[in-house]
Amino acid sequence: MLRFPLLTRYSDYDTKGHVNNAVYLTYFEWARMQAWMSHIVRMGGVSGADVADPPVIVAEARVKYVSPANIGVPLEIELSVKEIRTKGFSFGYRIVDARDDRLIAEGETVQVTYDYEGGRTMPIPPALRKALEAM
Amino acid sequence: MLRFPLLTRYSDYDTKGHVNNAVYLTYFEWARMQAWMSHIVRMGGVSGADVADPPVIVAEARVKYVSPANIGVPLEIELSVKEIRTKGFSFGYRIVDARDDRLIAEGETVQVTYDYEGGRTMPIPPALRKALEAM
Amino acid sequence: MLRFPLLTRYSDYDTKGHVNNAVYLTYFEWARMQAWMSHIVRMGGVSGADVADPPVIVAEARVKYVSPANIGVPLEIELSVKEIRTKGFSFGYRIVDARDDRLIAEGETVQVTYDYEGGRTMPIPPALRKALEAM
Amino acid sequence: MLRFPLLTRYSDYDTKGHVNNAVYLTYFEWARMQAWMSHIVRMGGVSGADVADPPVIVAEARVKYVSPANIGVPLEIELSVKEIRTKGFSFGYRIVDARDDRLIAEGETVQVTYDYEGGRTMPIPPALRKALEAM
Repeated sequence: MLRFPLLTRYSDYDTKGHVNNAVYLTYFEWARMQAWMSHIVRMGGVSGADVADPPVIVAEARVKYVSPANIGVPLEIELSVKEIRTKGFSFGYRIVDARDDRLIAEGETVQVTYDYEGGRTMPIPPALRKALEAM
Repeated sequence: MLRFPLLTRYSDYDTKGHVNNAVYLTYFEWARMQAWMSHIVRMGGVSGADVADPPVIVAEARVKYVSPANIGVPLEIELSVKEIRTKGFSFGYRIVDARDDRLIAEGETVQVTYDYEGGRTMPIPPALRKALEAM
Repeated sequence: MLRFPLLTRYSDYDTKGHVNNAVYLTYFEWARMQAWMSHIVRMGGVSGADVADPPVIVAEARVKYVSPANIGVPLEIELSVKEIRTKGFSFGYRIVDARDDRLIAEGETVQVTYDYEGGRTMPIPPALRKALEAM
Repeated sequence: MLRFPLLTRYSDYDTKGHVNNAVYLTYFEWARMQAWMSHIVRMGGVSGADVADPPVIVAEARVKYVSPANIGVPLEIELSVKEIRTKGFSFGYRIVDARDDRLIAEGETVQVTYDYEGGRTMPIPPALRKALEAM
């Protein structure tokens, strides 16, 4: 499990002063990129060319909004591997109030490993699988 | 069921030239607002004060990404009522290529009716229920 | 001069219920893309490969916020060519309340014509110049 | 002068792999909020009620795009006070490549001090002026 402080932007907040519902998927994506760069690349989970360009496609996303995130509240995001399958894997996310771990939102994304050159899905490469297992 | 042309913005597209995954929730939200203004308000589904401010909270969202939306592809979005419960309802969404109805993404959001003054959930007001049933 | 209705999104509005200041550049960009597709491409102002990919770089942008755009206010945007130089041109923008033409914001962007293959600025191609002059 | 690391999001990048032009104003705004919270509030530059809600309106913004910010490049942003007038002040911004200080973009925003309750501009409160002078 990885945990990151989440830097919000004023434009993330809606007319009620809460983080807009669509922005949570942007937070999930940001956490994925952080995980990619801070953990998976460092673990050797990808080969050179893929470092900035993960060989995956997001196939599904789900968010459950538990309590609103008001402006000024410091947030943190947790990302964990939920499931590793042959040609894909899923991440789970929890966004919490950094002060007391109150749950703000949780969710999940399903990624499919994809060979962009060949234009088709592919099995998870062994090095990537190993890095995911160590997360 | 309501269907609207979906105007994309250049900033919706990511480095691969596809609509970014988080933006679909923004499209869903835009369709909800259109439905609210073009149908529910007109049907008398809300009283004066709520016209610009639906008495609902989004509790859950889900997206399934079926095929990428490349830049230049004209999109349309369909919104339909999937379920009406005592204190909430869910909308279903389909985003399609306007030229051939190829499915790009589909999803769902669950809304809870909420009394913002009282600070608690509330049963769906009868006029709103009626407007939802006629959608 | 071209004029388009401007479809706002709920996420464009900030905690005060006004269009967020950064979003105006997104509106300007959207108008440029509309101008590109509805006018310049149709006028033959670009050759095949460039149709979805204007050979320009935005070099400068400027916005003046005149009065706030509250949620619910219908907006329109005007785009006009302000200046055509050898290797670039500038567009002017006015965003108005569609009901009474009250000025919400105005601004300008400077574009430089750019040869992406060669990796350098280039003179405005004659067909593009002609299309700009007819705008 | 204040300087902050700038955390970009995948959705900030456009189809060319560069930070989208409109996003720079969001970066400027984020730096303003950081300055507000990390410096001005701490300096006593605002009274209680205004801590989360600066008594200002952005009146103008200007960006000059100097070189593109490719995905993967670490960014930092500098914010400085450029001018303090009776009823407003302007900030200057520089966004640089954190590794070698290469200039990516620079710009400016003009803020007008505004009494939201009274609905009119107001002179800069003395405590805010003092905090700005010490920035």
